[in-house]
Amino acid sequence: MSFFDSRWVDRPAHVEELEPARLPLGFRAAGVAAGIKPRGLDVGMVVSEEPGTVSAARFTTNARVGAPVVVSRGARLDGLRAAVANSGCSNVGDGRRGHETALAMQARAAELLGVEPAAVGVASTGAIGLELPRATVLEGVAAACQGLGGDADSFSRAILTSDAGPKRCALEVELPSGTVRLAAQAKGAGMISPRFATLLCFVETDAQLSTETLDLLLGVCVKRSLDRISVDGQLSTSDTVFAFASGASGVLVEPQTPDELRFGEALDALLRQLALEIVRDGEGSKRVGRVVVRGAADVVEPVARAVADSPLVKAALHGADPNFGRILQAVGQVLPAGEPFVVDLEIQGLPVVSAGDALGLDAARLGELEEAVATDEVDIDITIPGEGGETEVFFSDLSEAYAAFNSTYVKGQG
Amino acid sequence: MSFFDSRWVDRPAHVEELEPARLPLGFRAAGVAAGIKPRGLDVGMVVSEEPGTVSAARFTTNARVGAPVVVSRGARLDGLRAAVANSGCSNVGDGRRGHETALAMQARAAELLGVEPAAVGVASTGAIGLELPRATVLEGVAAACQGLGGDADSFSRAILTSDAGPKRCALEVELPSGTVRLAAQAKGAGMISPRFATLLCFVETDAQLSTETLDLLLGVCVKRSLDRISVDGQLSTSDTVFAFASGASGVLVEPQTPDELRFGEALDALLRQLALEIVRDGEGSKRVGRVVVRGAADVVEPVARAVADSPLVKAALHGADPNFGRILQAVGQVLPAGEPFVVDLEIQGLPVVSAGDALGLDAARLGELEEAVATDEVDIDITIPGEGGETEVFFSDLSEAYAAFNSTYVKGQG
Repeated sequence: MSFFDSRWVDRPAHVEELEPARLPLGFRAAGVAAGIKPRGLDVGMVVSEEPGTVSAARFTTNARVGAPVVVSRGARLDGLRAAVANSGCSNVGDGRRGHETALAMQARAAELLGVEPAAVGVASTGAIGLELPRATVLEGVAAACQGLGGDADSFSRAILTSDAGPKRCALEVELPSGTVRLAAQAKGAGMISPRFATLLCFVETDAQLSTETLDLLLGVCVKRSLDRISVDGQLSTSDTVFAFASGASGVLVEPQTPDELRFGEALDALLRQLALEIVRDGEGSKRVGRVVVRGAADVVEPVARAVADSPLVKAALHGADPNFGRILQAVGQVLPAGEPFVVDLEIQGLPVVSAGDALGLDAARLGELEEAVATDEVDIDITIPGEGGETEVFFSDLSEAYAAFNSTYVKGQG
Repeated sequence: MSFFDSRWVDRPAHVEELEPARLPLGFRAAGVAAGIKPRGLDVGMVVSEEPGTVSAARFTTNARVGAPVVVSRGARLDGLRAAVANSGCSNVGDGRRGHETALAMQARAAELLGVEPAAVGVASTGAIGLELPRATVLEGVAAACQGLGGDADSFSRAILTSDAGPKRCALEVELPSGTVRLAAQAKGAGMISPRFATLLCFVETDAQLSTETLDLLLGVCVKRSLDRISVDGQLSTSDTVFAFASGASGVLVEPQTPDELRFGEALDALLRQLALEIVRDGEGSKRVGRVVVRGAADVVEPVARAVADSPLVKAALHGADPNFGRILQAVGQVLPAGEPFVVDLEIQGLPVVSAGDALGLDAARLGELEEAVATDEVDIDITIPGEGGETEVFFSDLSEAYAAFNSTYVKGQG
């Protein structure tokens, strides 16, 4: 089965899929079980062996960031050689002790890899506000260093928390100047919101890019993918994306060239599909919605989020309940009160609301709508007054399983 | 058992509880089964027999309001003599047809009661975007008019949707100038947000108040009660509060007097307790949280809402999971990124976070916290940087039952 299994993402024509845990030339990775979680892999590392590696990074915009985010921001973000990550504890809100643990992870990895500490990024994911056991995680870092291998299989599993399984992909990208490889490993299933998500994402390529080009491409593609998804509207304290370009293919991707365009298309498709996998894996999720809002440029975003984050809209999506009235309610919550409510709504291409009012509300019409929403991927298209704006948000449904899972998250770990 | 059973609301000393469905002097009410819902009462009416009755009203601020809200806003809101309401369909988004149905409900009630249409308020609650069957609801209005009686029992049941049972209270209030009665009937269990809720609330008193005094008192008390609750952060299209003062007691409540103060205290306690009942009855809810935020005046409100509406915080509340890290995450989602995260947090009076960092995270401490949150009403006190602001929001938890119920709301009615 293809990695690109959503109807919302097309595989670019010049892209071939490789074995999903494969790493581009010049990279090694590992994941080990250090004992932070009661069971399973929980410390991982990805390393580029090329001294000329360039990198780029993006982080959460939550005001309460974790210690690993603080430490990573202080690193040389355009010249990282490695990233070390753990699951099972996000190391957030533990003050000086937590900060020193994140620094120690960075320092231990750097020492064992023979690079500067500033060349190592750090990321942690798991419950907030608990102590990350320092000795345990440092043993994990050492074990991961010793276990570095040629694929990302164990690494992609070591970064998971509530995910149903690893999220990873490897592509071969045919550029005019030659063939390069592009891979990514991600995690995320809860605390996922636009502006992006409780996720960790690691991107590797053996293409040769300047730091500016890699940063630009990562920024543009994250904005169209990880930045456009919501499981529960909850902006995480720990979101981190690291991208590495080892250059080991010897294929140079120069700015403003067909090479850059094709490489960007591949990265875009890769990150959009990974983002969709995160939404699809939203705790307990069954269906994914895509809401597209067109209209006034400064209003489309809050409207899209109001719909994507409405527990009522999400619960209806879960049950394939044709309760489109809740979409109107969510839109109306954001639009200015007192002005004419001139909103159009289509669901799965079916016109449902025109100028704020329902179109034909008989039983036959409702049955048609009910059939249309009984699918895995549901399109919601909204037009609001004004022009110049268009945005989309992909969102998961709200299930009993989400509520159940999240009511004993900390207790369940104890 | 006392109506005032929350530790967050005290019964004022000068207030006695009456049989909860009792109406003040001068009022009659009825509820009938018209057949809008598959079963149960669904059309209700409350009427003041006193020609000098004064009234006040408050409505949702959603941009997409229902036809009954539009029609009621066009009525003589300080001189209403009656309100007619239905459950089973909120009559929202049905265009001209829905508007004419709301007007017809108003006209039919006015005709049968012998008052002007502008003296009748209209309210509807139920699913959005479906047709309210006009003939059916008008038959219900006529039947309710014929069945008007001296208590609010059937009326208080006719306005319910997903509520577990009627929400109503009747009080006798000892004022310096004499004794008056004060009663209210409310509904609401889902689509409840600050700025207030999917609720209908009807308040009656036989005190004699000027239109200005009633409007002022209602406004102040709604802001401290129905305006401060959230089941799911969803602002309804149909929220309506009508208050009627028949004056039938002959006791005049003049502005700036001890009478007004005491009457206001009684109304305040009544509406706060009713608001809490709505939160407590949040679909599937088991526990209620109160978040109090102190700090910068323009930030306390979004912070309180971010916490109250976080599905992760709410799920943890449901499971009595001491996952306070999610509260930090929710606060951080709202506070400006990049500034020092100097936030204090107490849960049930237990200091948990100081200046953004957790206080002592060992197992004993966690156990203490776990014990503290295993109660029906949980206090969350947050201090953020800045001064001059303080707000509170009462919120329900997020349960599997909420998700299940809301995934088949329309289908379940079909």
